Amino acid sequence: MRSYQALSLRVSDQRVQILDQTRLPDDEVWLDGSHPETMFQHIQALRVRGAPLIGIAAALSLAWLADQRTEVPVLKDAARHLRSARPTAVNLMHAMDRVVEALDQGGPDALIAAADALFEEDVALCAAIAQRGADLICDGETILTHCNTGGLATAGVGTALGAIREAWRRGRRPCVFVDETRPLLQGARLTTWELARLGIPHTLITDSMAGALMREGEVDRVMVGADRVARNGDFANKVGTYGLAVLAHHHDVPFHALAPRSTVDLACRTGAAIQIEERSAREVRGYGTVRWAPASASVWNPAFDVTPATLVTSLVLDSGVLPRADLLQDGLPRHLAQASSGNT
Amino acid sequence: MRSYQALSLRVSDQRVQILDQTRLPDDEVWLDGSHPETMFQHIQALRVRGAPLIGIAAALSLAWLADQRTEVPVLKDAARHLRSARPTAVNLMHAMDRVVEALDQGGPDALIAAADALFEEDVALCAAIAQRGADLICDGETILTHCNTGGLATAGVGTALGAIREAWRRGRRPCVFVDETRPLLQGARLTTWELARLGIPHTLITDSMAGALMREGEVDRVMVGADRVARNGDFANKVGTYGLAVLAHHHDVPFHALAPRSTVDLACRTGAAIQIEERSAREVRGYGTVRWAPASASVWNPAFDVTPATLVTSLVLDSGVLPRADLLQDGLPRHLAQASSGNT
Repeated sequence: MRSYQALSLRVSDQRVQILDQTRLPDDEVWLDGSHPETMFQHIQALRVRGAPLIGIAAALSLAWLADQRTEVPVLKDAARHLRSARPTAVNLMHAMDRVVEALDQGGPDALIAAADALFEEDVALCAAIAQRGADLICDGETILTHCNTGGLATAGVGTALGAIREAWRRGRRPCVFVDETRPLLQGARLTTWELARLGIPHTLITDSMAGALMREGEVDRVMVGADRVARNGDFANKVGTYGLAVLAHHHDVPFHALAPRSTVDLACRTGAAIQIEERSAREVRGYGTVRWAPASASVWNPAFDVTPATLVTSLVLDSGVLPRADLLQDGLPRHLAQASSGNT
Repeated sequence: MRSYQALSLRVSDQRVQILDQTRLPDDEVWLDGSHPETMFQHIQALRVRGAPLIGIAAALSLAWLADQRTEVPVLKDAARHLRSARPTAVNLMHAMDRVVEALDQGGPDALIAAADALFEEDVALCAAIAQRGADLICDGETILTHCNTGGLATAGVGTALGAIREAWRRGRRPCVFVDETRPLLQGARLTTWELARLGIPHTLITDSMAGALMREGEVDRVMVGADRVARNGDFANKVGTYGLAVLAHHHDVPFHALAPRSTVDLACRTGAAIQIEERSAREVRGYGTVRWAPASASVWNPAFDVTPATLVTSLVLDSGVLPRADLLQDGLPRHLAQASSGNT
């Protein structure tokens, strides 16, 4: 296996390791995730997270297993098992498809090469998304973001946060408002940590403050990631994204979803077809080992919500920027067909 | 002093006591709050909270001090100090005005009688609001609420939660969705506790899930309290209320603010004139003694936001229900003038 170093995933000394994101921002703890079963647990527990990253992490653990001269049926079982770790993350499905197809066609060595390619492609995809996203950001803008879409969510610079980082690199001085992103607080824990490392000015708010912030005219732009994009441009992302889109629409604030092409699922005709993962009630009753609600409180805990394309100013892919009008005129499948034929 | 027993405030054996709301839902701990200085600290630390309740609690602690044969200037100093405990809560100012006026006119005994009257009036106001609010609720409706507006926030049954409780008493079988209400989690800790005590079915969500819930058609009505209502019907309430109002508007869901007349501040022409208290960054960086954001993360933490009357279906006062159209035609001062002349 080749060696890699991303912000929260690395391959070194023939082992796959992940930075335990549940321990951030205070502790930087790397854990072994070489075996697919271990990686499955890391993914389910959100120790490794971010739609693009979990596909790559899962593929690298399969590559590790292939490197141990494991039988093909065992590798396929492991791939099947990994698919079930996060049902909404289409990137994970794509990654498993890619490596299993490589395995079928060229055996374990081809699987390993396919996992390597996934990593390298993601770095390039992030760079392309960041370039296109940064083009949208004017000097001195304040940008509201949700969840974590940076180097902790990808093998590269990230999606929405990658664009902000690229705008900063270009000297555009963005200011970032960070939604804390209940229940798992990826904004409070991870996005603040990344922005502080990068030296980009930022202010943390609770998710419930976004409306007041927009009403005061403090938000110039909303930029979020996407976990799955349907054929018509509707997309699933971390719960709370839809509410932000409605608020942005009400206040005439531009709203962008940024994602790699691999996030688009043309088999999903609209957002209504996207399956939403529901997670444990414990996550809403408290955080980590702390509980503040009654232990018996009944809870609704969808991990994602669906934002209709009608509320999106533009969808920013590595291959191009699609404005709402294009999305609503079946522009996404057309765009992808052109992009895959190299006409971008 | 007379004896009283409310859900979280009581006078017994000539002492004023409060139920420490920061210890709920797991521990029911009563604390002495007889001395105004102690009560000031309870109010600031939100151990006693709820716009109506803090005015009454502050008045009862002044009554206790008056009962100790304290000099009038000392009583007045204590009243001035109590006023500063929560600058946005107009009820607290009204309560202090009432008891100091009584003191000026009739001495310490009149102050004690005025504090008693505040308690008894609040019970009656809550009952009237609950009746009018319950009239709006149809059988089997799901109602989304924010923060805590029940018996823990008032001397009586509460405002928004009082209406739901009264609808339940009438056999209308409401179901309640409870916003957890970051950062201080009054919904998760207090509203769930009250609803469980009352046996009313309820489901806890994070504030960020309200949008998805409305999009799924799961919310028939939003009912919230109000901490201060301006002359034009704009009102300040727990941060997050404004975002809910925008979401309700977008989804054509009726949105009601419920409050006693004493919450209306005719001196405030519009919501823009309402002063918003900003609280400590620590509240957003974590909860209680737990911190999850970086210790140095910069934070915006307004305790309230302002919802314009244009987004309100109706304002429910003890004295009547004012639809948006009335509010927008200067109906609130007219209504209050009629109500105070007894024509309600």
